[in-house]
Amino acid sequence: MKVFGYGTEAADKDLVSVVFERKDPRAGEIAFKVTYCGVCHSDLHQVRNDWRNTTYPCVPGHEVVGEVTAVGDGVTRFAVGDVIGVGCMVNSCLDCEKCDAGVENYCQGPKGFTATYNGPAKARGENTYGGYTSHFVVREEFAITVPNGYDPRYVGPVLCAGITVYSPMKHWGLEAGKTLGVVGVGGLGHMAIKLGKALGARVVALTRSEGKTDEILKMGADEVVISSDKEQMKSARQSLDLMINTIPVPHDINPYVGLMKSDSTIVIVGNLTNFENVVPGPLVFNRIGIAGSLIGGIKETQEVLDLCAEHDITPSIKMVKMQDINDVLSTLEEGNDGDFRHVIDMQSLHEATDHLERTAATIPDPYRGDVVNRRAS
Amino acid sequence: MKVFGYGTEAADKDLVSVVFERKDPRAGEIAFKVTYCGVCHSDLHQVRNDWRNTTYPCVPGHEVVGEVTAVGDGVTRFAVGDVIGVGCMVNSCLDCEKCDAGVENYCQGPKGFTATYNGPAKARGENTYGGYTSHFVVREEFAITVPNGYDPRYVGPVLCAGITVYSPMKHWGLEAGKTLGVVGVGGLGHMAIKLGKALGARVVALTRSEGKTDEILKMGADEVVISSDKEQMKSARQSLDLMINTIPVPHDINPYVGLMKSDSTIVIVGNLTNFENVVPGPLVFNRIGIAGSLIGGIKETQEVLDLCAEHDITPSIKMVKMQDINDVLSTLEEGNDGDFRHVIDMQSLHEATDHLERTAATIPDPYRGDVVNRRAS
Repeated sequence: MKVFGYGTEAADKDLVSVVFERKDPRAGEIAFKVTYCGVCHSDLHQVRNDWRNTTYPCVPGHEVVGEVTAVGDGVTRFAVGDVIGVGCMVNSCLDCEKCDAGVENYCQGPKGFTATYNGPAKARGENTYGGYTSHFVVREEFAITVPNGYDPRYVGPVLCAGITVYSPMKHWGLEAGKTLGVVGVGGLGHMAIKLGKALGARVVALTRSEGKTDEILKMGADEVVISSDKEQMKSARQSLDLMINTIPVPHDINPYVGLMKSDSTIVIVGNLTNFENVVPGPLVFNRIGIAGSLIGGIKETQEVLDLCAEHDITPSIKMVKMQDINDVLSTLEEGNDGDFRHVIDMQSLHEATDHLERTAATIPDPYRGDVVNRRAS
Repeated sequence: MKVFGYGTEAADKDLVSVVFERKDPRAGEIAFKVTYCGVCHSDLHQVRNDWRNTTYPCVPGHEVVGEVTAVGDGVTRFAVGDVIGVGCMVNSCLDCEKCDAGVENYCQGPKGFTATYNGPAKARGENTYGGYTSHFVVREEFAITVPNGYDPRYVGPVLCAGITVYSPMKHWGLEAGKTLGVVGVGGLGHMAIKLGKALGARVVALTRSEGKTDEILKMGADEVVISSDKEQMKSARQSLDLMINTIPVPHDINPYVGLMKSDSTIVIVGNLTNFENVVPGPLVFNRIGIAGSLIGGIKETQEVLDLCAEHDITPSIKMVKMQDINDVLSTLEEGNDGDFRHVIDMQSLHEATDHLERTAATIPDPYRGDVVNRRAS
C-alpha cells in the first residue's frame, strides 16, 4: 500500500513529507492505520545523527498506535478493528536465549532486534520506517494490545518511556515493602514514580528543582529529596533498594551511591555518554551495582500497558499536528519540552492526503525483515 | 593473658614489638596460639593510614591461623588443640538482615562488622589488634575450621584473598557452563583462577604481561587474553558471564565492558579509588552491571577453605619471620611482591619471648566487643 509520512534525508535538514510503499501483510503480520504517534527525545537524536548511526532517509516514531486494517494468514491474536500499539522494536530472531526469555530487546541474533525505525540494531544499511507514517505493517509478536477503555492517545509514551522504567523495576525485583529512588523527573521519571507506586513500592523522587516538589508529590511520590541539599541527601543515606536514574546527560553519580542500601542497584536509563570519576569504594563496601537497562521486552511492554490501564496511569501529553513536527523537534532541542510528551494526532496526516499526493518526496521502500513466526507455530 | 606482637604508633613509623593483655575467653569465645599470619596489602594501607581511618596503635594481620588453647562456656564447635583460622572479621551484630543471611561483612548493625584489626567498620576509636600477635581471642561464630590435611601455612591467604574472589562468584551464580573473566593475576587473581575452575567454570585470565601466559595457564586458566592486544580483546567480545576485576589501582574499565555478555556483571574487588570516564552506553545496551564486593561472610569463608582442601588449591606463598615485617611491607610498597603472598611463621615470635619481655612497648588493651552468642543459643 502507498504510505505517507514525514522523514528527512540528512542530519541538517528538516523533516518533509515522504511517500513509499509498505507491502501487504504476509503470514503472521498485521497492517494498521496509524492514529497517534508519540515524539521521543530519541527521534531528535536519530534525525540529527547524534549517535553517528543514522541510516537515511530517517522516518522516526516508535510510540505508535493504530487500528488494525488487515491481518495475514495465521494471525490469531488480532483482528481488523483492534486498537494496537508498536513500541521500539518490530522484529528480532525469536530464536536466542534472550528472545526465549522474553527480552527481545537484548536479542543475541546476528542482527540484534530490529528497531521500529533505523533498522536492525547490529546491522547498518537495512532501514525501517517508524510511526510518523499513515500506515504500518508489523509481525504479530511485536504488536501490543491496547486494553479496553485506555485512551489510545496515552499509549505511545507508555511503549517507550513507560517500558524503559518498568523493565528494570521488574528485573531488579521492585515490590511492596521496597523503596524506589527516581532521579530526574521528566518524561521517564514521572512514569517511574507512577509505576513504582502501582507496584506497591515507596517512591522517593530526587530532583534539583525545589519548585517542582508539590507537582511531584501530586504524581504520587512519597517523598521528594532536593539533590543539591546536602542535609536532605544525608537524611536519605542508605534508604533505597533500587534507583532508576533518568538523567539524560553526564552528571556526578557518586552522591547517589550514598543513598543506596547494601545489595542494591542503580539503573542508568538516560545518560549513554559518560560518567566522570566513579568512586568504587562505596560500591565495594555495600555490594552496590551500577547497571544499565534498555527499553524492555514485548511481554513486559504488554504488562506495563495493562498496569497503566488497571491503575489509570497516564503520561502527561500534549497533542500536536504532524505538519508541526519540525517545531516540536526544535522545542525538544532547546530543552523547552515542559514535563509532557508530545503526541502526534495522525488525523492531521490522514486529512492531508490530497496535498501529500502532489508534494510528498518518494523514498525507497523500507526493509521488511523476516517473518519467522516461530512463536505462532 | 600477656600477648606479644608487632604494631606501630603512627603512619610514618616502623612496626615495633608491643605487649598488651587479651582477656581470657568469655562464654562463647575461644583462645588460640597464633602459628601463621598472612601479610595482606591492606595491612600496608592500614599501617600507613592510606585510607585516613587508622586507629593507632595499629597491630595488623587478618589472615590468622592457630591452635586452640582454651574455650569459654558454651563453645560447642571447637576444642583445645583444634587448628582454626580467623579472617577479616571478629564480630558483628548477628541480628540484622545481612547477618541473618550469612553476610556479616555487610552487617547493618550500628557499628557494622568489627574488623580483625582497626576496630568496628562504622565506629572509630574502639581498636582491635590483629594476627601479628602471639595469641588471639575470638568469639566462636567468627572462627573457621581448618580441614584435616590442609597445610595451615596456606590457610591465611584463603581467608582474605580467597574469600574476596569466591564470595562474588557464589553471589553472582558462577557455575559449570559459565565463563569467568579474571582481570589482574596477582594475589587475588591467581586464587580467582583456581577457584573458578573448582566451581566448574571456564576461566579466561586477562593480563597486560605477555610473559606471564605460560604461568597463568599452569594455574588452570583455559585461556589468557593480553588486555593490551586489541585483536585478542576483539576476539573475546561478549564472551564472559562474570568478571572479577582485581586490579588494585585506577584504570580504564571501558574496554572490559565489551567482553561481557548481556545480563552479566563486572565485580570490582581491588580498586577502591576511582574510575575515570565510565561510558554507560554499553551497560545500557546489554544490561551489564558494574558492582563491588567486600571479602565475604563466615559461612562462605568456611566453604571456600573446604573447597581449597577438596581441590588441593593452595595460594602461592613465601614464609617470612615476624622480625622481618618492616622489610616485607617495604617490598609490598615498592610493588616487588612477586606473585606470592608473604606468610609470617609466628614461631619466630614465640621463640623471641625472652627478648620481647625486655623490649616490647606496652600498648593499651584492645576493644573486646560484645559476645551476643545469639547463634549458639
